[in-house]
Amino acid sequence: MNRIKQSLIIYVIKWIVLAVIVGVLAGSASAFFLISLEWAAETREVYPWFLFLLPFGGAFISFLYWKYGLNAAKGNNLLIEQVHGAKGSIPFRMAPLVLFGTIVTHLFGGSAGREGTAVQMGGAFSEAVGKIFKLDELDRKIIIICGISSGFASIFGTPLAGTVFGLEVLAIGLIRYEAIFPSFAAAFIGNIVTTAWGVQHHHYEIGLIPELSFFLIVKIIIAAILFGLTATLFSELTHWLKEKFTKIMPNPVIKSFAGGLIIIGLVYIIGTRKYLGLGIPLIDEAFNEGVSPFTFITKLLFTSLTLGAGYQGGEVTPLFVIGATLGSSLGELLHISIPFLAALGFIGVFCGATNTPIACLLMGIELFGSEAGMYLFLVCLISYLFSGHTGIYTSQQIGVSKN
Amino acid sequence: MNRIKQSLIIYVIKWIVLAVIVGVLAGSASAFFLISLEWAAETREVYPWFLFLLPFGGAFISFLYWKYGLNAAKGNNLLIEQVHGAKGSIPFRMAPLVLFGTIVTHLFGGSAGREGTAVQMGGAFSEAVGKIFKLDELDRKIIIICGISSGFASIFGTPLAGTVFGLEVLAIGLIRYEAIFPSFAAAFIGNIVTTAWGVQHHHYEIGLIPELSFFLIVKIIIAAILFGLTATLFSELTHWLKEKFTKIMPNPVIKSFAGGLIIIGLVYIIGTRKYLGLGIPLIDEAFNEGVSPFTFITKLLFTSLTLGAGYQGGEVTPLFVIGATLGSSLGELLHISIPFLAALGFIGVFCGATNTPIACLLMGIELFGSEAGMYLFLVCLISYLFSGHTGIYTSQQIGVSKN
Repeated sequence: MNRIKQSLIIYVIKWIVLAVIVGVLAGSASAFFLISLEWAAETREVYPWFLFLLPFGGAFISFLYWKYGLNAAKGNNLLIEQVHGAKGSIPFRMAPLVLFGTIVTHLFGGSAGREGTAVQMGGAFSEAVGKIFKLDELDRKIIIICGISSGFASIFGTPLAGTVFGLEVLAIGLIRYEAIFPSFAAAFIGNIVTTAWGVQHHHYEIGLIPELSFFLIVKIIIAAILFGLTATLFSELTHWLKEKFTKIMPNPVIKSFAGGLIIIGLVYIIGTRKYLGLGIPLIDEAFNEGVSPFTFITKLLFTSLTLGAGYQGGEVTPLFVIGATLGSSLGELLHISIPFLAALGFIGVFCGATNTPIACLLMGIELFGSEAGMYLFLVCLISYLFSGHTGIYTSQQIGVSKN
Repeated sequence: MNRIKQSLIIYVIKWIVLAVIVGVLAGSASAFFLISLEWAAETREVYPWFLFLLPFGGAFISFLYWKYGLNAAKGNNLLIEQVHGAKGSIPFRMAPLVLFGTIVTHLFGGSAGREGTAVQMGGAFSEAVGKIFKLDELDRKIIIICGISSGFASIFGTPLAGTVFGLEVLAIGLIRYEAIFPSFAAAFIGNIVTTAWGVQHHHYEIGLIPELSFFLIVKIIIAAILFGLTATLFSELTHWLKEKFTKIMPNPVIKSFAGGLIIIGLVYIIGTRKYLGLGIPLIDEAFNEGVSPFTFITKLLFTSLTLGAGYQGGEVTPLFVIGATLGSSLGELLHISIPFLAALGFIGVFCGATNTPIACLLMGIELFGSEAGMYLFLVCLISYLFSGHTGIYTSQQIGVSKN
């Protein structure tokens, strides 16, 4: 009994130490990255002609990945595969490559996110830490999960969601707890470190929670089905574009160059630049007033094109934008409070695309408070069911069928 | 594609219908039970001599279980075993037996809880509903999980925790999502129904959340280790007493009679009746002022004795009492805000005894708000690790080793 408790204390201390190292690295990287993103967005505003550099920037990054990236181009999927025990390892260069690549995407006006970048930096650092400490196979998997959790937690300021995301994203319909404490510790520290660097996270107000009624539930279920289907549309379109682009242009440099040209063309056809970058102003708009249904589908198209053409960056913030704007436009149609449905969409589309309902519930609670908890979970679960067995992470295994 | 979506809509409607039936039954039963418990506690206050009926009440209930209970005496473990595919089924009589048995326990002054009762009523109703609708093997398991979730959610007014509890309690270190939507629907409806019957849940205030510091974390970890060890002590002592009592007195009627006499003796040795029943006034006391460390250990002893002697009732509310009073007494010692540490203890000991950290986190958020989320999760995980691979539910399987 005493020996068991002793070994447990050693286990806890060991993982706190490793989590501090991973958390300081991932949290600092997230802070640097968030500040860089802000700089990139502001600079792009000041110099609108930067957009014309997008094809060149994209081509250059794709060239770097092609020549020096090893398997880093697999992105988040590489981390998931490594946790599942695939051969190979996570090259350290994944961290600088994805950081630099994502900043280039945002500086020149690609439509992409940031969680992929934060998670990949976390994963690459974790793998390096694991090598330095000569961790065994199981501990190596655990520390990679720590990197995912720490990156996710620090980039969004949501440590509870980050902890569970690292565990839940690996397989659909299943959570295993091997890494639950290490993951939590790394998410906790990562978030503290990012905040300590003075980085503040954007805040949205869900407004008044509507009173429960039968019709409200029916309306929310309808909205949630649409969130799930939109998530599938996004995942499938992005995968399809990736495939088609690669088939037509097997050379990644040419592919990204051409993708950049298409995005420039699209900007001039639509006549606005608000779909470029993360799209956070669109989220603000969605929470403030009912936006046109055109908004979510355009952001979806811009992001699928950007990622399909091989640009670096995550999917999650654009998913937030797509969800919030879809929710906002449905709010008018369904006569539900707009910020409320925007918040549900924000979480719901994300959940459908990542298949992580518990992490999404926790994220919803961390961002919008616990009062809307039941509605958030309802939306997460319906969207999860209706998004099918696909998602943005193709290496995610199917643990348990959805229905 | 369309066929898949169609079958999904049927799946969702089917489970909403079944969840409404289970939820209305379990929620109404919980409401009736909660009102009865209040009546029992008040009546016991008015007629102190009822305590002397405890041995007779206990003996009578044990007689009923012995002669007519079939396998209902297995309690919550029967539900868990049935979900895991054991032979046999859940007899409908489990519901009235556990309801009546628990009211008798509380009316005459046994120290026990209520979640076991609510969960067993939910499980028995679910099994009956499953039989009426002739559900197949998988759906039958899902509906039993619904019963567990609905009972738990409605008895504590915590639907998010109820949903996850039903999934998480089945095995240590693993959640599978087969039942996640049905479980959610049943928990949601069950909670609404109980509230609609006019039943209100007790509310506790966590007070100000202390500012994050290194020493605060160290102190919380120390407290959480104690919460986990206390949970183990409770589980092991209760199992040990059950075994010893049964060995010395194989006849359950005699066993419960003798147990009642011991409890009466203990009341007169200690000179107070505050350890009888659920013990909710003790929780209020723990949140208001630092209580003596004697309190938690005495409540633990009373409850282990009551349950060890074969009395009916749950374990969870006494675990809340044990945790809150332990936290409260540690608050003075560790110089941490007393209601804050009482809240952490409330959740932490419960988590150690049930091995359900995510359900406990959600319960903490539902009861105390999301602001303390990180501390709640820290306590849940440390307590979970330090409570070992045992718990109050002996049929809980070990899915993934804790460390």
